[in-house]
Amino acid sequence: MTTRLVIIGGDAAGMSAATHVQRVHGDDVELVVLERSPYTSYSMCGIPFLVGHEIDDPEDLVVRTPEEFRAQGIAVQTGIEAVAIDGSRRVVRARQVDSGKEHEEPYDHLLYAAGAHPTRIPVPGGDEVGMVVHYLDEGVRLERALTALAGERDRGDHAGRVVVLGTGYIGLELAESLIQRGFAATLVDRSAQVFKVLDADMAAHVEQALRAFGVDVRLEVTVESLRMDGTRCQAVVTDAGEIPAELLVVAAGSRPNTAVAETAGCAVGVSGALVVDDRGRTTVDGIWAAGDCVEVVDLVADQRLNVQLGTHANKQGRIAGIDLAAVIGGAEGGDAHFPGVVGTAVTKLCGTEIARTGLTVTEATELGIEHAAVAFTGTAKAGYMPDPGEVHVKMVAERGSGRLLGAQLVGTRCAKHIDVAASWLMMGVTVQEAQLFDLSYAPPFGGVWDLLQVGCRKLVGELGLSPRL
Amino acid sequence: MTTRLVIIGGDAAGMSAATHVQRVHGDDVELVVLERSPYTSYSMCGIPFLVGHEIDDPEDLVVRTPEEFRAQGIAVQTGIEAVAIDGSRRVVRARQVDSGKEHEEPYDHLLYAAGAHPTRIPVPGGDEVGMVVHYLDEGVRLERALTALAGERDRGDHAGRVVVLGTGYIGLELAESLIQRGFAATLVDRSAQVFKVLDADMAAHVEQALRAFGVDVRLEVTVESLRMDGTRCQAVVTDAGEIPAELLVVAAGSRPNTAVAETAGCAVGVSGALVVDDRGRTTVDGIWAAGDCVEVVDLVADQRLNVQLGTHANKQGRIAGIDLAAVIGGAEGGDAHFPGVVGTAVTKLCGTEIARTGLTVTEATELGIEHAAVAFTGTAKAGYMPDPGEVHVKMVAERGSGRLLGAQLVGTRCAKHIDVAASWLMMGVTVQEAQLFDLSYAPPFGGVWDLLQVGCRKLVGELGLSPRL
Repeated sequence: MTTRLVIIGGDAAGMSAATHVQRVHGDDVELVVLERSPYTSYSMCGIPFLVGHEIDDPEDLVVRTPEEFRAQGIAVQTGIEAVAIDGSRRVVRARQVDSGKEHEEPYDHLLYAAGAHPTRIPVPGGDEVGMVVHYLDEGVRLERALTALAGERDRGDHAGRVVVLGTGYIGLELAESLIQRGFAATLVDRSAQVFKVLDADMAAHVEQALRAFGVDVRLEVTVESLRMDGTRCQAVVTDAGEIPAELLVVAAGSRPNTAVAETAGCAVGVSGALVVDDRGRTTVDGIWAAGDCVEVVDLVADQRLNVQLGTHANKQGRIAGIDLAAVIGGAEGGDAHFPGVVGTAVTKLCGTEIARTGLTVTEATELGIEHAAVAFTGTAKAGYMPDPGEVHVKMVAERGSGRLLGAQLVGTRCAKHIDVAASWLMMGVTVQEAQLFDLSYAPPFGGVWDLLQVGCRKLVGELGLSPRL
Repeated sequence: MTTRLVIIGGDAAGMSAATHVQRVHGDDVELVVLERSPYTSYSMCGIPFLVGHEIDDPEDLVVRTPEEFRAQGIAVQTGIEAVAIDGSRRVVRARQVDSGKEHEEPYDHLLYAAGAHPTRIPVPGGDEVGMVVHYLDEGVRLERALTALAGERDRGDHAGRVVVLGTGYIGLELAESLIQRGFAATLVDRSAQVFKVLDADMAAHVEQALRAFGVDVRLEVTVESLRMDGTRCQAVVTDAGEIPAELLVVAAGSRPNTAVAETAGCAVGVSGALVVDDRGRTTVDGIWAAGDCVEVVDLVADQRLNVQLGTHANKQGRIAGIDLAAVIGGAEGGDAHFPGVVGTAVTKLCGTEIARTGLTVTEATELGIEHAAVAFTGTAKAGYMPDPGEVHVKMVAERGSGRLLGAQLVGTRCAKHIDVAASWLMMGVTVQEAQLFDLSYAPPFGGVWDLLQVGCRKLVGELGLSPRL
């Protein structure tokens, strides 16, 4: 009898695994993918660019369609969501999203790659307010709503005002996209700073870029409800008064989608995500998990976190697929192990590039790690070049050892340079060592001392270490 | 009695050391700097931008002037060149460049930072042909000659044709600058490819960019002489015929300037540069050396090379300064050690970014290192973004161990990303490890798999290693 592998979730993690298992075992494995939406393998990070009309067709964000997967022997069932898992009987209870009709999917092995679900804002009465944008179908829906709104605005029906709730990646990118499309955009967040993955002083540079681009940023404000006139939104009601608006978009983060895996008894860790080992095995025999729904080890802090990023989902999916293919083939397991993360992330916003890796000062302090930090501003080209640009740099290192703990960059042409610091973190490099690494230099790209090395030198001084160059 | 430190050469290495010693010891050390040119501490790499009119004032390339150094207590003597060193008497024989008048400079400690001198093209009769551009004063002279030539061209006196000999960094950058200033530029080299620090297949992309920009590239051509009409150049005579031109610029590389140090008995290594330890000490007691005139250890190839780059000169100067300051203060030596290099270099040319680190396939082959290589083309943004750009990638790794040996990048927005590979080389990282590093991802900056990690994955396959993702 052929082995039956069921995969819950048809995006990056699930389909990376499916593709690998199919390549290794071909038709010897029956591959069934249950996907809630009409889409497979799409770039969630591309949604703001769709909303901002930098990309015209939602299909452009789809790496491979359900039809393409089917042609390759992977039975993708779209519009189907998993409801529960019976790990002893090895059966998934599944439901058609449209009809509500349920059926059972038996499995020999199960990969749970259900991703994360967005935070919604409930209001008294039970309904939620605003349009949430997380899945691609939601992105498409928002894009259509904005196009309708733009038409009304252009006819003079209203001013075309949109409030975005949430100042994470998606919220910030949406605010930019709205301005690009001629809307008045107000960005609202309960916290005292935008983009909480940066320290407040670095986030201030991001806020400045948003304001300069025309975004109205309002912090320490909580959204309470919408004031409606029939079906038309008049204003977003907050604890700091009303903000007149025709639309509220909610981008208030997302939580790992663990509920269905929990019905099988899969353990959830302190991070709220599924516990898996470095090959993607959950605590329940026969069930693997990967992607936005799992915990990862943060190598700098040595703690378990949930980090929702496509790059991890791809790697984890591949690794789980390698392990699954090996187990299906009768081996003990696969030879690929997820090493953990260091918290690297980048984005581009209103012409400003933003990057971070490792720990912020806030995080290092919370973890009780003795550290020193430096913050300074440099240029993206040699200072004598025309338009040398500006890069704000912040770096943190551990007292005593000098081990780099983290770096943050905000400014001109700096984002991908964070991968240098990320590599240092992956290898536990000290600032004493890194300051003398052979990094590149040419006037169009910076000064004789690379900015990260300027930071290392300053940190060596702050930490009282040697050699002090 | 105050200690007397004499420094030969007032550019990056010499002045980095001088500044450090002055900061530590103040007036307790008498600091004398002998500099041949009228300039100190200038950016040699900025000269092509001066020639290309991206920078208007040569003084912009000067980080600190002789006057500024003097005000800070460092006795800079410009227009003075060292002629010989008597290490037993601890005396430098120095000469005024203008008058030829000689005098002696006694020293307690000596730092030799005489840089490199450009290759000149001798022709029968003893004279050399063409304008050499290496030192800042030569850059200024070339800029003036071009301005005069442009005036003549605009009056219709001639066609404004310039031949550049040499396809290293400076030659390529000059050719670009000439096109930008409206000259017809022909680039000539004896070798069969441009930019020999890249493999030929990668250099072909550079050549293509040059041609697309309007540069006439002629390879495997040797310059023999100039055909003159009185004082006016008519054509550059080569072994492949004449190239009509009003000016020949020679950028045929440069050799470490060791002659004067050799008069003191300082050893020269296989690379042709001065042998120094990792604190900059030469083989002669009391004499240090740093910058373009010294040998460095290449950590990838484990051999000694001469690498002429401002970034190394700065670091080495600082390290020698730390050692000198310690020795002057009565200690055994300084605590800073130059770790060696991995051959990192970048440039930007005709809108194309070019970067390399470690070994090329050619170099790995010459060294007899068993290796595998991959070459492929990716994008600088996610493929679905508008104008995703194009990046040509080539990577080399060692058979057996999987240790990365080198990387080359040519294309859009890729140059500084070489520092990621350079960091891997500094730490001896394998492609198996690096393929799973937590590098950044966002659609404006590339795909879910970083291009260097795509290369690692391909190399793992080529080398038959695991895990194969």
